[in-house]
Amino acid sequence: MCWVPVDASSDFPLENLPLGVATFPDGHTAVVVRIGDFVLDLPRAGIEPELCRRDSMLNLMASGRLSQVRQRAGELLCGEERADLLQPVDAVECRLPFAVGDFVDFYSSIQHASHIGRLLRPGGNPLQPNWRQLPVGYHGRSGTVVVSGTPVVRPWGLVAQGEGPARLQPTGALDFELEVGFVIGSAGRAIGADEADRHVIGAVLLNDWSARDIQAFEYQPLGPHLAKSFATTISPWVVTLDALAPFLVEPPVQEPLPEPYLRAGRPWGLDLTLEVDLNGTTVTRTGFSTMYWTFAQQLAHLTVNGASVRPGDLFGSGTVSGEEPGGWGCLMEISENGREPLTLDDGSTRTFLADGDTVTLRGWGGREGTPRIGFGQCSGRIDAAPERGW
Amino acid sequence: MCWVPVDASSDFPLENLPLGVATFPDGHTAVVVRIGDFVLDLPRAGIEPELCRRDSMLNLMASGRLSQVRQRAGELLCGEERADLLQPVDAVECRLPFAVGDFVDFYSSIQHASHIGRLLRPGGNPLQPNWRQLPVGYHGRSGTVVVSGTPVVRPWGLVAQGEGPARLQPTGALDFELEVGFVIGSAGRAIGADEADRHVIGAVLLNDWSARDIQAFEYQPLGPHLAKSFATTISPWVVTLDALAPFLVEPPVQEPLPEPYLRAGRPWGLDLTLEVDLNGTTVTRTGFSTMYWTFAQQLAHLTVNGASVRPGDLFGSGTVSGEEPGGWGCLMEISENGREPLTLDDGSTRTFLADGDTVTLRGWGGREGTPRIGFGQCSGRIDAAPERGW
Repeated sequence: MCWVPVDASSDFPLENLPLGVATFPDGHTAVVVRIGDFVLDLPRAGIEPELCRRDSMLNLMASGRLSQVRQRAGELLCGEERADLLQPVDAVECRLPFAVGDFVDFYSSIQHASHIGRLLRPGGNPLQPNWRQLPVGYHGRSGTVVVSGTPVVRPWGLVAQGEGPARLQPTGALDFELEVGFVIGSAGRAIGADEADRHVIGAVLLNDWSARDIQAFEYQPLGPHLAKSFATTISPWVVTLDALAPFLVEPPVQEPLPEPYLRAGRPWGLDLTLEVDLNGTTVTRTGFSTMYWTFAQQLAHLTVNGASVRPGDLFGSGTVSGEEPGGWGCLMEISENGREPLTLDDGSTRTFLADGDTVTLRGWGGREGTPRIGFGQCSGRIDAAPERGW
Repeated sequence: MCWVPVDASSDFPLENLPLGVATFPDGHTAVVVRIGDFVLDLPRAGIEPELCRRDSMLNLMASGRLSQVRQRAGELLCGEERADLLQPVDAVECRLPFAVGDFVDFYSSIQHASHIGRLLRPGGNPLQPNWRQLPVGYHGRSGTVVVSGTPVVRPWGLVAQGEGPARLQPTGALDFELEVGFVIGSAGRAIGADEADRHVIGAVLLNDWSARDIQAFEYQPLGPHLAKSFATTISPWVVTLDALAPFLVEPPVQEPLPEPYLRAGRPWGLDLTLEVDLNGTTVTRTGFSTMYWTFAQQLAHLTVNGASVRPGDLFGSGTVSGEEPGGWGCLMEISENGREPLTLDDGSTRTFLADGDTVTLRGWGGREGTPRIGFGQCSGRIDAAPERGW
């Protein structure tokens, strides 16, 4: 029996034990395990102190000892009570758990890609010819991946002005994107679609903040750049693939059948529930199991050309959207690209994000009566664009 | 007077003194300065031993002491002879000088972008509407940036097959791209166009290897991904901005005038000569001063949205091409996208690269009678695609 009180609705029961990095009230920083509303100080508990007495969990990730660490933490939490090793999570500052190496973002929800395609190319084929043959993706900026709670400053960028020249201005179309991010803990290249669990150690929630007006002007022909490079927020807890294993499910049937390197014999879909909260209103509730391309296929694809991955690399699922209104993973979809304002519970309306807005992603696996394995919150408040001399 | 013999045609006279990282015959690795055909072991010379006794020059770059290090190295090389501190460059192994943080690649030669646009969209406007208003760029993969001399393995990828489904195969259209890369040594965001020299510490040659058939199928709508992520080669010597200062020139006049954040009062063009050698045949000779967007504008652009740069970030100029045949910076241009084979000095022909081919970039500033400030070589040999079980 676990001696830490854990509420039945908590994201963090004994079955979860995700890892992160926290700075304690006395100023020291360490790799920690989350349990209920507390964190367990791993080096203080004598668990891999050399690897965990750090401001990053990268060395622990790369060590291959994550499973043992979670097991030892679980044993400790069910043994003799050691409340001195815990700290209330509200009393610590959660840090970015690791410096991100390469960040690749995919575009793997067929509902999202089709919806966006219809908005941008009305009357045309909503999906590009490549979409069903490979997981479309691109590299994002790793140096601006920040942890939940970090304010997001409204970016400046060039925005088209009808037929005239584009002008530098703060974005007027700031959006969130509801995603799940996957964390690499072990290096490799040309990774088979059924080998993903040898390299992916866990997952986080990920908000790929996007400036739609900047994106629309800049993205031809080399893809999004400044529209997304200003910030990407991840949740502080790396929920391990071990903890997520009960939620692995068969993904949707793929038609046409992809090339052999993208075919998997094991079920790599993930049955998770995801939500977006905007200033206290739940604006999105959807599931992750409908994603067309799985994270295993994404990893197989991004390494099939011989490209290497290394511990600390991160890749995002792409925006997660369902079929129906209420299940759309970004404001561009919810507001039909700014044409249909959304009404929040406080009566205010939004097409895109306003200064002061707070967006919080939540996500978990588990149904009634089974332990809930959750990610906690991935949250960011929009700060006004800074004044510029230009 | 420098006591090291330096040939008049050398890229590395006393006025250059670029930095790199080398492993010596006795197995130790250190930050070094290149002089003529030798390297100077900085920690052994007592120059910043704490910063330089490493397998990366990142800490030295971030320390802000690069100018002093070059000055002290120069004084040492002009003082009492200390041949014991030198090693022939042929006896050491040059390493990747620093682990790359974020890698952004631009597309800033108007000759190249226009030529590619004519090849891909015959009859249409060769330049996208955004091209003259901002330096178009995208994020590339930083974990696969390798140092000159590293073999480049022909990548696999999905290639369109007429109207049928794309198939996984080794690329049949492997190309080089002649570029200059700029190295960040000091963090910043929203960097003014005239502040580039506070953040850029130097430059390297950069070959953005590209698989044109993979690129053509994958790049809509999020840009190139696997077509370029398999390898990017840089030259081993970071030629400092101090050494390149004599070659700063006015860039081409920009029409229309860009937004104020992209206007500079100082001349940020660079008068460099660049060459590509393919198996001993010089296939390209061109100049860098015709680049439409300067590195200072590129840096201003990539940070205008609030995105941060940090020491170890790298950004590429984009393929450098001149107006005329003989000055084109990639085989896609030279061969008119595979339609016009190129004949090498040995009588063989190429449209794209063959296994066993060696591509070497060279570049330097300086005319007859002035010191030549060069980059050395940026070289890579193509290895055959590995066998796969697929």
